[in-house]
Amino acid sequence: MDIYGIHTLDVATSSQLSFINSEKYLDSLSSTKAAAVLIESKYIHLLPEGVIALVSDNPHHTLALATKLFKHQPSTKTEMPYKGIDCDIDDSVSFGVGVSLGERVTIMAGCYVGDGVSIASDTILYPNVVLYHHTVIGSECILHSGVVIGADGYGFAPTAEGKHTKIYQNGNVVIEGAVEIGANSTVDRAVFGSTIIRRGTKIDNLVQVAHNCDIGEDCLLVCQTALAGSTKLGNSVTMSGQSGATGHLKIGSHAVIASRAGVTKSLEGGKVYGGFPAIEHRVWLRMQAKLAGLLKRK
Amino acid sequence: MDIYGIHTLDVATSSQLSFINSEKYLDSLSSTKAAAVLIESKYIHLLPEGVIALVSDNPHHTLALATKLFKHQPSTKTEMPYKGIDCDIDDSVSFGVGVSLGERVTIMAGCYVGDGVSIASDTILYPNVVLYHHTVIGSECILHSGVVIGADGYGFAPTAEGKHTKIYQNGNVVIEGAVEIGANSTVDRAVFGSTIIRRGTKIDNLVQVAHNCDIGEDCLLVCQTALAGSTKLGNSVTMSGQSGATGHLKIGSHAVIASRAGVTKSLEGGKVYGGFPAIEHRVWLRMQAKLAGLLKRK
Amino acid sequence: MDIYGIHTLDVATSSQLSFINSEKYLDSLSSTKAAAVLIESKYIHLLPEGVIALVSDNPHHTLALATKLFKHQPSTKTEMPYKGIDCDIDDSVSFGVGVSLGERVTIMAGCYVGDGVSIASDTILYPNVVLYHHTVIGSECILHSGVVIGADGYGFAPTAEGKHTKIYQNGNVVIEGAVEIGANSTVDRAVFGSTIIRRGTKIDNLVQVAHNCDIGEDCLLVCQTALAGSTKLGNSVTMSGQSGATGHLKIGSHAVIASRAGVTKSLEGGKVYGGFPAIEHRVWLRMQAKLAGLLKRK
Repeated sequence: MDIYGIHTLDVATSSQLSFINSEKYLDSLSSTKAAAVLIESKYIHLLPEGVIALVSDNPHHTLALATKLFKHQPSTKTEMPYKGIDCDIDDSVSFGVGVSLGERVTIMAGCYVGDGVSIASDTILYPNVVLYHHTVIGSECILHSGVVIGADGYGFAPTAEGKHTKIYQNGNVVIEGAVEIGANSTVDRAVFGSTIIRRGTKIDNLVQVAHNCDIGEDCLLVCQTALAGSTKLGNSVTMSGQSGATGHLKIGSHAVIASRAGVTKSLEGGKVYGGFPAIEHRVWLRMQAKLAGLLKRK
Repeated sequence: MDIYGIHTLDVATSSQLSFINSEKYLDSLSSTKAAAVLIESKYIHLLPEGVIALVSDNPHHTLALATKLFKHQPSTKTEMPYKGIDCDIDDSVSFGVGVSLGERVTIMAGCYVGDGVSIASDTILYPNVVLYHHTVIGSECILHSGVVIGADGYGFAPTAEGKHTKIYQNGNVVIEGAVEIGANSTVDRAVFGSTIIRRGTKIDNLVQVAHNCDIGEDCLLVCQTALAGSTKLGNSVTMSGQSGATGHLKIGSHAVIASRAGVTKSLEGGKVYGGFPAIEHRVWLRMQAKLAGLLKRK
Repeated sequence: MDIYGIHTLDVATSSQLSFINSEKYLDSLSSTKAAAVLIESKYIHLLPEGVIALVSDNPHHTLALATKLFKHQPSTKTEMPYKGIDCDIDDSVSFGVGVSLGERVTIMAGCYVGDGVSIASDTILYPNVVLYHHTVIGSECILHSGVVIGADGYGFAPTAEGKHTKIYQNGNVVIEGAVEIGANSTVDRAVFGSTIIRRGTKIDNLVQVAHNCDIGEDCLLVCQTALAGSTKLGNSVTMSGQSGATGHLKIGSHAVIASRAGVTKSLEGGKVYGGFPAIEHRVWLRMQAKLAGLLKRK
């Protein structure tokens, strides 16, 4: 049997490895299609028949070691990209191998377009944009200078001695059409699967989107916003300036997060939230007013 | 009649288009010199004689469409810059057309200097700085690596369906002399007119200055500060680390904004402010102390 | 006598200049080995015999002027680096003079490696990384795109008229082995001596480390964290997303700073801290709960 990659229990196919590093995924164990699973011995009896158990005392750390087997080897190899008509590409642009460009793509000076990247029609990269390998960019996108798409997500597994073993980030980033991303913003590649920015979303400067986030359509992410890993935004969500959200949350469609708010749990859509930890903005404002009253009275 | 650009009601000349998208600008309507104004039908009677009314149900959105008519076409066209004596320019630097450099300008590897940019004498650009088209840089400036000047301001007009139509940012950035800007900071170009950083101001790393801001002389903007659009700082204002200000505010000369403070309304000069929303720092400290007392007592 | 540089009273050698700009350093004055000291006349009698007094009404400002005498002259001069076997260096990489590379170093397109930089074996620089002069990078490091190491720290001395005179940053940055730094993060060079990132530390995207910080081993600095100048972290400190610390603090080993916390005084290790100003996280949570109770009751 050959193993071609790693994915979560729910998604892994019969040619992929998977892992269980938390009790909360036990439900997914019995139905996994993975070829093999990194697993503590106490859970082996829950594996479906035919799935190979790779027993580890610390599956999270073993996973980190396994990701290295599938990592993309960075190199300076280069190859002329396939390109559509009427592209305008500066001579200083560096291409990896297997790059594909649509029609009327503009790529300005100093950009780097990594192995296997595809860019659809009518998209422009301003100077010094970097697209790591296998990034997918839709049509009519605007990427401003200094944008970095597809750098490694921030993932490490601790050793017993408190060292941090790198979890290689073998997924990619997919950016749909009509997305604009401001100067020096960063969108990290997924550990498995894809970090996704959906159609029509507009991102300001110095924004961070971590690995495995899924940003819905027509969202607005204002400057210096940061989203931690695997957080999912619905459509038309607004994250105002200097706001943030921790990881593994869901923020519903049409939610508005006020400036400097910090979201720490999932929020339903259609409402305005503020403060840290973020609560409904009208409640936050009322509490601030009450507090001011209390402090005056004292 | 030929129209050569767009500007606000107060500033537009007889060869420019203007617009009214809010009641608060009604006063400017009767005295505008604009050739034509995007306007709702209910306000037409307020226009001065001879000014053409371009009637729209949604002038803000029509404005966004109109800005596209005047946008600068990004391209990879290049031309040798005009330059003064004793410049030190790396071979890898990319120039647009119509660039002008003063004397003793240093431009290090990987920089991009866009169409129509001018840089005055004794200024240095460290590696990988990007200056978008028509940026103006004064003398004796220091721009550190990764700085991006003149990327598009973050401006969109919503459609009825909740899509975001780009408002092309047709202004520029003007940086006066003796300004230093830290690594990976960003200063966005104005939608109309100029974003301005005045003489002697020093900006740290990862700072964001949004479109149409006007930063006075000798200000200090410490790391990760963000100023939203059209905010105006007097002279010698200090914005400490990780502070911020929302848009369309005025902060008076010699004001000091403490670390992590968030300014949400205009502030008079000469005082120290802290907290979020920012208030006078001594009041904020007193309130924090009272609060601590209350919570201990409970 | 020849003077070859400037350093603090404690560290300056007999061929260096020093200075005293605050009463709190009076203790160091009597034991300094410096050749000469910038000093107010009232402290001259405290100088050890043989140390030259350079009298100034404003030693801090005179110091700023003196730093310029020792500054590194930025230039576009270039020279082939010394390099070990099996390096993979893109043709577009720019090198200053006197660069030294270990074995199996990978440097991708658009990077700049300044004068006197050394990079140890098995380190990779992704596209568009900038290393300012005399940066030292250890082995097995990973520097992601847009990282800027060694830009000038943010240091200015005020003139009587409120102008800011640049203090040239004549130190460097030392990054030990097995460090990873995320996209568009910045680590500033020291004013004197070195800014240090120790072995095994992992830094996320858009993080700022200011001049003269000393980050211990195996620390985690999550996205958009900022550390002000001269702050010292022990080993295995975690700074969570969007957190910060003011300057000249010590944070003990194994401390955990929660998301968005702002550290304003030194903290002992082994504990979790949150809030702004940061206090023990369990106390902060209890205070938040009490506060919510008070506000409900009112």
